[in-house]
Amino acid sequence: MNPITSNKSSIDYGSIPGTVYLRDEFWSRYLELANDVIIPYQYDVLHDQAVNAEPSGAVRNFEIAAGRVEGEFHGWVFQDSDLAKWLEAVGYSLQIRPNPDLERRADELIDLIAEAQQPDGYLNTYFTIKEPGKRWTNLTDCHELYCAGHMIEAAVSYYQATGKDKLLGVMRRMADHIDSVFGPGDNQLHGYDGHQEIELALVKLYELTGEEKYLKLAAFFINERGTEPNYLRNEWEGRGRQGHFNPLPADRIDLSYLQAHKPVREQTEAVGHAVRAVYMYTAMADLAGLTGDEELLAACRRLWGNVVQKQMYITGGIGSTHHGEAFTFDYDLPNDTVYAETCASIGLIFFAQRMLRIEPNGEYADVMERALYNNVIGSMAQDGRHYFYVNPLEVWPQACSHNPGRQHVKAERQAWFGCACCPPNVVRLLMSLNRYVYTQRTNTLYVNLYIGSELTTELGGTSVSIRQQSDVPHGGKVRFELKPERQAKFALALRQPGWCSEMKISINGTLTKFSGLHSGYVMLDQVWNPGDIIEVDLSVETQLVYANPRVRADAHKAVIQRGPLVYCVESVDNGDLIASLQLNRQAGFKERSLEDLPLGSIAVETNGFRVSADDWEDSLLYRTEPPRSEAVRITAIPYYLWGNRGRGEMSVWLPVCEG
Amino acid sequence: MNPITSNKSSIDYGSIPGTVYLRDEFWSRYLELANDVIIPYQYDVLHDQAVNAEPSGAVRNFEIAAGRVEGEFHGWVFQDSDLAKWLEAVGYSLQIRPNPDLERRADELIDLIAEAQQPDGYLNTYFTIKEPGKRWTNLTDCHELYCAGHMIEAAVSYYQATGKDKLLGVMRRMADHIDSVFGPGDNQLHGYDGHQEIELALVKLYELTGEEKYLKLAAFFINERGTEPNYLRNEWEGRGRQGHFNPLPADRIDLSYLQAHKPVREQTEAVGHAVRAVYMYTAMADLAGLTGDEELLAACRRLWGNVVQKQMYITGGIGSTHHGEAFTFDYDLPNDTVYAETCASIGLIFFAQRMLRIEPNGEYADVMERALYNNVIGSMAQDGRHYFYVNPLEVWPQACSHNPGRQHVKAERQAWFGCACCPPNVVRLLMSLNRYVYTQRTNTLYVNLYIGSELTTELGGTSVSIRQQSDVPHGGKVRFELKPERQAKFALALRQPGWCSEMKISINGTLTKFSGLHSGYVMLDQVWNPGDIIEVDLSVETQLVYANPRVRADAHKAVIQRGPLVYCVESVDNGDLIASLQLNRQAGFKERSLEDLPLGSIAVETNGFRVSADDWEDSLLYRTEPPRSEAVRITAIPYYLWGNRGRGEMSVWLPVCEG
Repeated sequence: MNPITSNKSSIDYGSIPGTVYLRDEFWSRYLELANDVIIPYQYDVLHDQAVNAEPSGAVRNFEIAAGRVEGEFHGWVFQDSDLAKWLEAVGYSLQIRPNPDLERRADELIDLIAEAQQPDGYLNTYFTIKEPGKRWTNLTDCHELYCAGHMIEAAVSYYQATGKDKLLGVMRRMADHIDSVFGPGDNQLHGYDGHQEIELALVKLYELTGEEKYLKLAAFFINERGTEPNYLRNEWEGRGRQGHFNPLPADRIDLSYLQAHKPVREQTEAVGHAVRAVYMYTAMADLAGLTGDEELLAACRRLWGNVVQKQMYITGGIGSTHHGEAFTFDYDLPNDTVYAETCASIGLIFFAQRMLRIEPNGEYADVMERALYNNVIGSMAQDGRHYFYVNPLEVWPQACSHNPGRQHVKAERQAWFGCACCPPNVVRLLMSLNRYVYTQRTNTLYVNLYIGSELTTELGGTSVSIRQQSDVPHGGKVRFELKPERQAKFALALRQPGWCSEMKISINGTLTKFSGLHSGYVMLDQVWNPGDIIEVDLSVETQLVYANPRVRADAHKAVIQRGPLVYCVESVDNGDLIASLQLNRQAGFKERSLEDLPLGSIAVETNGFRVSADDWEDSLLYRTEPPRSEAVRITAIPYYLWGNRGRGEMSVWLPVCEG
Repeated sequence: MNPITSNKSSIDYGSIPGTVYLRDEFWSRYLELANDVIIPYQYDVLHDQAVNAEPSGAVRNFEIAAGRVEGEFHGWVFQDSDLAKWLEAVGYSLQIRPNPDLERRADELIDLIAEAQQPDGYLNTYFTIKEPGKRWTNLTDCHELYCAGHMIEAAVSYYQATGKDKLLGVMRRMADHIDSVFGPGDNQLHGYDGHQEIELALVKLYELTGEEKYLKLAAFFINERGTEPNYLRNEWEGRGRQGHFNPLPADRIDLSYLQAHKPVREQTEAVGHAVRAVYMYTAMADLAGLTGDEELLAACRRLWGNVVQKQMYITGGIGSTHHGEAFTFDYDLPNDTVYAETCASIGLIFFAQRMLRIEPNGEYADVMERALYNNVIGSMAQDGRHYFYVNPLEVWPQACSHNPGRQHVKAERQAWFGCACCPPNVVRLLMSLNRYVYTQRTNTLYVNLYIGSELTTELGGTSVSIRQQSDVPHGGKVRFELKPERQAKFALALRQPGWCSEMKISINGTLTKFSGLHSGYVMLDQVWNPGDIIEVDLSVETQLVYANPRVRADAHKAVIQRGPLVYCVESVDNGDLIASLQLNRQAGFKERSLEDLPLGSIAVETNGFRVSADDWEDSLLYRTEPPRSEAVRITAIPYYLWGNRGRGEMSVWLPVCEG
């Protein structure tokens, strides 16, 4: 089936307003950190000049491939993608704030990349330096199309920021080369990448250039995936069953790890490597939206449902096991042996954004918000220089050191990683966060996230500027100032977040009644005048949240949540033996500011219990007398801030009793 | 230091009475199963003739080594030890009950073993068939001395049963050969086995033959271990850092995995592979007892304390991680990712027995009993043909299948294992269980386990026959009938088990007051007459047991225990979602017989709660409304019987509330 030629269905793929600038107290700190600290720091890392970070080799690989220096390829087979993600982030950054010095550095790197491109358009430093002649022979493991995808995303971002088309030209040539190698033709490879990414990148290239061949190629990769005869299995057999990462011949190839175990339209459960999965779902949603492919949309809805209804941590983390960084099965959400890779939550945000373009539904935005405010920003230290790759919901630091089954969980953020996919992914998301606040469908502007921002778009036949002010996540006051160039009729759709039980809306000072929700949004569809003010009051309560009893790991436990923020308890506030704490369901919560953490963050306190180890000898493991329970004051802080005040125990889920 | 020449200290190494026959309702079933089913079944397995079991190759390897057939070595490098353990068990079996057919089969195998012995006394089929010329070049991995140790144990057992010394002669020649290769001499290897076992076997050989050289060799291996320059590290460096199991050169050798990271006298914490550790501690205790080495005894006490006070599951399982089948660190006792290998608990029982010989203390017997009645017999299915290698305390069968971090845990016992160390180890322990009931120190007989048995020994200068009848573990009535050949003064020391709060003792029908406990034993030290009857009434209560709050995994939980039996709950009695159950600390227990499980086993019922999933949609992961809690009747069964009624969830620890 060629989706390009399928009959246009009822699917209307909404748009992302192009001109949005974030002006938000909470997020501006992150954007400044990204601009002022992380992007320069990552530049140093990519150039092997950062202190306390493992050498990346990424830039040097390009220098070698370009013939500027001699040397050996260094790093992972997908090392190129680190530079690509950085350039993509730089593009977003330059869109927000001009920075001639940064732009000059980026231009220099783009010159280098162009030099590393081969005469036929091919671009990949690993196969240029280390295994020339082996191009496209191990799609399963070698990330060639994945790296190309990231560089295409960088090219699109950098062009949109600067209007400079050098990298775009490089990557169009690479895309054209790929298009010549892959496709349905007899003389073409019918393969697809083991790590999805090229698909969503080609959609971006199509959206920028209007060139249908890129959309067709994305659809080819998606449609071909998992069909029989299975390309990746055949490729593996042809290689003598050897892999890139494990040169010993293997008994089997786990196609579900690659989501290539069956055609994507037949997939009903999220399986395998979580990042690959959500990158694929993102591209599937793009294709469904752009081509009107209802069958693909049905698969997206099913897979979305499986992820968020059965396999998502309350922090928006996905991937329950570090073995293959993968999904496991429904309701299996262990908090201590968790994976919940940062990149996977970022991919889930991509997927949610695409689904919001297809069909406005507050649930997509709820998940996006959950992943963003908890898993994703929690992965980064407040200094911007240290990151979690794995985002646990329960940490006992000694276990991370001394129990090998927990060693993938780190009790402290690391300066950088040998596999440095997450930090640049965080930065590119942060720098492009303006693309996640709103979606638009003709005359309706959907407010998906309450993040202070300035927007200009076309609504009701006129240009409208809108200024959003918001004190989410700490508070629930949001204010919109509308400036249509002239009076106009259009709709503002304001999401009622899942965490918000009551939403009050005033228009020009008058409390407005609204009649129910439309898929999670309040529709304010009326004639607007320049200077109209909408004030929204979202109730922000501290509340206990419970998990479906089918989640064994969370039985008899609860989480403290306040607004979009999931809370956790740490040793630094509560002493060691965090597992000994118990919440009292009847106790209320008291909020207080957190002096030792930034930005007026809010801690909550509550009365609970602690099972005391004081009267229990160190040398006695078991006894019939119950441990003494004592009343304690429990202090919880937002999960995203954990681990910023030294090493200690942490838990998101806490046992709860009736009091 | 040569322990043989150290000054005799105050240590008096007690003895194991030689003539003990079990006559016990509970255990006779196991002994019959072992005799009638398991030993014949294992014979078939060793001969690759068992249905539904992986081929062992053990006997065939000997046939190849003996030159009877041609072929390739099959199985693990330590495959010989399976045959050795089987022969050892056969020896014990023949001591209990003559069986000419079995003895003939064993004799045939011994003939085969003798044929496989090399002219210089060396015996090991792997190095004879597969790597001739590589003897003693990889002590770290290759289990040569370990296999020799097991065959020595078999030789001792078989000689004691039959008086036939063919295998004993074979293994003395092998021991003499080892003694020529290893030792302090300049022309000798200063090494020791990566997997301890030879040490305790050499002690047995010494105890049987009185040959001090075997004791000295055992002491050499123990004393050399972990000293610098480290033999195993040097050996590994010399091999190009390659291992037998992983041919790729490694960055480091984990000497603590082998308990060779420091001299044994300096070791304070149980580390590394759990079976190796407890086998080593057993030999250390043997040596301390036999040579009066106080320093070694102090190390034994320290290591014992660390294991049972900090690293032992309530089932007597040890080893918290499957990575290296190893100890992790203090209080780290996860119930779901547990290892608790059957062999490790068996080794712990060996260690306890040796400590009981050194110094009577009820704590040693408590641990022995705990490991025996829970972990060890729980490893075996009621049909005797299926075994657990890993003995989990919490099982969610789908997680065992679909979460790779849980896949070492099996929800059902397996017919046999590729690495079949556990089943023959269980059998040899069962068949020699008569050696764990009593220890003797001159005129005091210590009753360590309440297991029906008949004993004849020398006490108070005369031969005394004692008949013990017991309905432990189901009940607490124990009866001793004493038959000294003539009136005699001696002491009977009756252990008050840790689980027993009240112990009543009647002598010839008269309730006896006893003055306190001596290290956990009631001392009945008096003049005894033929026909004296001692009746003991041990209180057997169903009670809740709690874990030290430092054990994070068991916080807010309790275990049901009745007598020595730890209980668990299973889906078959309680439905799925075992994690949703909660005990009520105030509720009582009702005992009832278990019709569908053997031997009048006792289930206990109690009122508790269940978090209901009924009013919670499958498709909703999180919500603010707490799940409904409903009163339920909870049924628990003895842990050792779990998994005998189909596949389902199981948990030993259950959340507990005040009700």
